[in-house]
Amino acid sequence: MKSRVIHEQNGLRTFALAFETGDEVLQEITRFAAAEGLDAAEVTGLGAFSSATLGYFDLEKKDYEEIPVGEQVEVLTLVGNVASFRGEPRPHLHAVLGRRDGTTVGGHLLEAWVRPVLELVITKSPGHLRRETDEETGLPLLTPSG
Amino acid sequence: MKSRVIHEQNGLRTFALAFETGDEVLQEITRFAAAEGLDAAEVTGLGAFSSATLGYFDLEKKDYEEIPVGEQVEVLTLVGNVASFRGEPRPHLHAVLGRRDGTTVGGHLLEAWVRPVLELVITKSPGHLRRETDEETGLPLLTPSG
Amino acid sequence: MKSRVIHEQNGLRTFALAFETGDEVLQEITRFAAAEGLDAAEVTGLGAFSSATLGYFDLEKKDYEEIPVGEQVEVLTLVGNVASFRGEPRPHLHAVLGRRDGTTVGGHLLEAWVRPVLELVITKSPGHLRRETDEETGLPLLTPSG
Repeated sequence: MKSRVIHEQNGLRTFALAFETGDEVLQEITRFAAAEGLDAAEVTGLGAFSSATLGYFDLEKKDYEEIPVGEQVEVLTLVGNVASFRGEPRPHLHAVLGRRDGTTVGGHLLEAWVRPVLELVITKSPGHLRRETDEETGLPLLTPSG
Repeated sequence: MKSRVIHEQNGLRTFALAFETGDEVLQEITRFAAAEGLDAAEVTGLGAFSSATLGYFDLEKKDYEEIPVGEQVEVLTLVGNVASFRGEPRPHLHAVLGRRDGTTVGGHLLEAWVRPVLELVITKSPGHLRRETDEETGLPLLTPSG
Repeated sequence: MKSRVIHEQNGLRTFALAFETGDEVLQEITRFAAAEGLDAAEVTGLGAFSSATLGYFDLEKKDYEEIPVGEQVEVLTLVGNVASFRGEPRPHLHAVLGRRDGTTVGGHLLEAWVRPVLELVITKSPGHLRRETDEETGLPLLTPSG
């Protein structure tokens, strides 16, 4: 994954990222977020994956039901944010993926392998955003007032 | 719904919003937009709904055909803007929603109930954007030159 | 297509664009990008198309397989960027489109005809982004370190 700062001013910083074949998206974003000290950032992008595992949150099981995607797909959207959870940057991303015939599959991003490229814009805000474990669901929910 | 300013400079202001179970999205955004004086803002986000009503605009009837979504779904994208219409802030949002099996359903957002969370980033620009009723369709279309 | 600057500061410039019935999206964005000198810009939007041709990149053929969309659809997301390729601004956009029944179709945007409106926010960064032809796929891939 390669990145470049395309705008910077008073704590607002915008990065363009290009991932390469074989990159795993969550690992790379987490590593990047730690290196750049992101804890209030917005993520938007597009590209293609060779495979992915998406998730649907089951409120009764309090866990993600896995949706395996075992084919080359276009990444139609990858949208989300990075906030701080237990002192570490935690990405939260949802994806819509497109198959050869244009049908789509989507969910919470659990794992995804880039091929041949994923292009993201990440905008780092100077403010802070924190996640805290929600008692009811067990999820690390955003707590903007905290 | 809780919100937090994560960046502010010379009239540009970025908010992170976290909606909670039971919040109706359009009502909350409209209330927030009025309170914050938004009339040129961009909206992007993700989360989950317990149910929603989407719309497909029928050009002949000049009205939305309703697409009811009566199950818990992931919000894969919620994308749109807020502009001024008849002196009041008016959100315009489209959603892509994901079911348990990863299949998707999407349309113009008419109504949506959050469960357990919806995370939005709203960027308020210092400029102004107005909508005006389009004679041909009856829709409040964006008029950026106006 | 009409546009308006809604924020501008130190090389960062945000435009709101409203396309009209009959506009072809890639032609209009390419023309706009050339006129405004965009070479590092982010694009996000929503609206409706009367028809479109989407693409799925076939890694073996090294070309897009076409996905024709021959009906009025909601544009649920149009997400991408503009970077410089061979000295000219080149948009790269993926779309998720919604049919009357809420089913979706998505892919790389090859051609799209607006009806009645497409609303985009384009954020121009002061930095530079370049695409270069990738030998393996033949695609003009983003090279943020270049």
